[in-house]
Amino acid sequence: MQLPERVKIVEVGPRDGLQNEAAPVPVEVKLGLIERLEKAGVSVIEAGSFVSPKWVPQMASSAELFQQIDQKPGVSYPMLVPNLKGLESALSVGVKEIAIFAAASESFTQKNINCSIEDSIARYSDVMVQAKQHGLLVRGYVSCVLGCPYEGEIAPERVADVARSLYELGCYEISLGDTVGVGTPAKAQQMIDAVTKCVPVENLAAHFHDTYGQALANLFAVLQRGVSIIDSSVSGLGGCPYAKGASGNVATEDVLYMLNGLGIQTGLDMERLLQAGDFISRYLQREPASKVARALSAAD
Amino acid sequence: MQLPERVKIVEVGPRDGLQNEAAPVPVEVKLGLIERLEKAGVSVIEAGSFVSPKWVPQMASSAELFQQIDQKPGVSYPMLVPNLKGLESALSVGVKEIAIFAAASESFTQKNINCSIEDSIARYSDVMVQAKQHGLLVRGYVSCVLGCPYEGEIAPERVADVARSLYELGCYEISLGDTVGVGTPAKAQQMIDAVTKCVPVENLAAHFHDTYGQALANLFAVLQRGVSIIDSSVSGLGGCPYAKGASGNVATEDVLYMLNGLGIQTGLDMERLLQAGDFISRYLQREPASKVARALSAAD
Repeated sequence: MQLPERVKIVEVGPRDGLQNEAAPVPVEVKLGLIERLEKAGVSVIEAGSFVSPKWVPQMASSAELFQQIDQKPGVSYPMLVPNLKGLESALSVGVKEIAIFAAASESFTQKNINCSIEDSIARYSDVMVQAKQHGLLVRGYVSCVLGCPYEGEIAPERVADVARSLYELGCYEISLGDTVGVGTPAKAQQMIDAVTKCVPVENLAAHFHDTYGQALANLFAVLQRGVSIIDSSVSGLGGCPYAKGASGNVATEDVLYMLNGLGIQTGLDMERLLQAGDFISRYLQREPASKVARALSAAD
Repeated sequence: MQLPERVKIVEVGPRDGLQNEAAPVPVEVKLGLIERLEKAGVSVIEAGSFVSPKWVPQMASSAELFQQIDQKPGVSYPMLVPNLKGLESALSVGVKEIAIFAAASESFTQKNINCSIEDSIARYSDVMVQAKQHGLLVRGYVSCVLGCPYEGEIAPERVADVARSLYELGCYEISLGDTVGVGTPAKAQQMIDAVTKCVPVENLAAHFHDTYGQALANLFAVLQRGVSIIDSSVSGLGGCPYAKGASGNVATEDVLYMLNGLGIQTGLDMERLLQAGDFISRYLQREPASKVARALSAAD
């Protein structure tokens, strides 16, 4: 029941958030967002991905973006990489940290990358060898940890298997994604209980979507299990591709509000975080999905 | 850490929700909503209030409304009553359960009803004597339990004092309201810990607003303390009067989704509850504030 004293927030808005926008966001706007996130004290900003521009045109400018980031000391800028080709692109622009992604659901893996979970892990082992040779840090994602859009419930043990595979492969941190936001608190705890049998809790991140409004409750539940890394998206950027109109990533502002209230250190500044959210919300001409942002702007 | 096996949901949409609408909602629409809530399995529906129609025109038709409710066995329809005059009105139409409301903040009580907390409790003792003589059940509200719009933080002990006063006065259930939605999980637990020193936990209800997105996390936190009664509002009806544009009551659909996920019995049917929310959202020509409702309708 002891909560962590400190939580690391991994900001995924520029990648996981903006990749869901219908129209690609220009590099200069992404740079403006990243700069404001740095000023708010965020120490990890997932900035883009080296995936096929044919499939994800929103991320097509990731190499250009990465090169233009005025990197701050103490801040890391992981880039998502699906395969060796992506890794080459990442290396060519001097990326120091990458993220690879697997899923805990067979159906999701089949539909998403057209292979089995086992094969997906095997494919990453090549990426991993190369990444290690170049001294890169590698973060691993597991999606569908609390449910799958195709097969529904996912057994906690399946999540643990995939998390262990990525950890054994050499990922220094495993981010557990409730991709469809269907999880509830006790299930989130059971999933963490299963995963911590294979991977130390300090290497686990909770990456929860708020599609059904459950994300903060689920985060509070896993904080109670000692999870001390949270992925979130400023202004709640990122819809849910499986339910148009529904919200996606939990908003960093709302996470920070809860952590502040719990007395947990993050190093983030709410005022500046709100400014970052305001910046991108104005560009997108959309009200922020963060309730904290709405309440505070309404109170002005 | 043991969660309750069963939770009673008190639906406050028709009163606490609709009293925040700019234009009063017609009696027939409220009746349609109440009927659909009954069909969804809700056993307590706060239907209206006998307050001055000058101050709260949204509730002016409460007597007419109450008389027209086709009351179902096993369902109670509490009506808010601020004073003896309100009680007389309630008795004249055969109300069997009333609710009275106090606050844990001196400033809020002064601004809201122009007297001290102590005086407010004293005033209710007359209402209570009369109510008991007529065999009415009385529910007591304490507002501002996790913060006040005027004085900020509220000590848990102050909440406990007011809750005890209402309990000693004869209220069978004390509903603890985070009126401005500023609470976070550990503070909610500390508040419950203080109150349960004076009032048995089975007589406590959590009435949390979602203005800052924290309501479900706070509810999960107090469920862990044994609280087994939750006030909520279908479709998240009810804005926050202190922050225009910000959301108010936690949505019943979102609460039910979490409780279902936790394996906690409620007697409510999600499909029918969504129909009730859809009915009132269509009338108000507004998207539901419930994320579950949005996600499920988006998935259709």
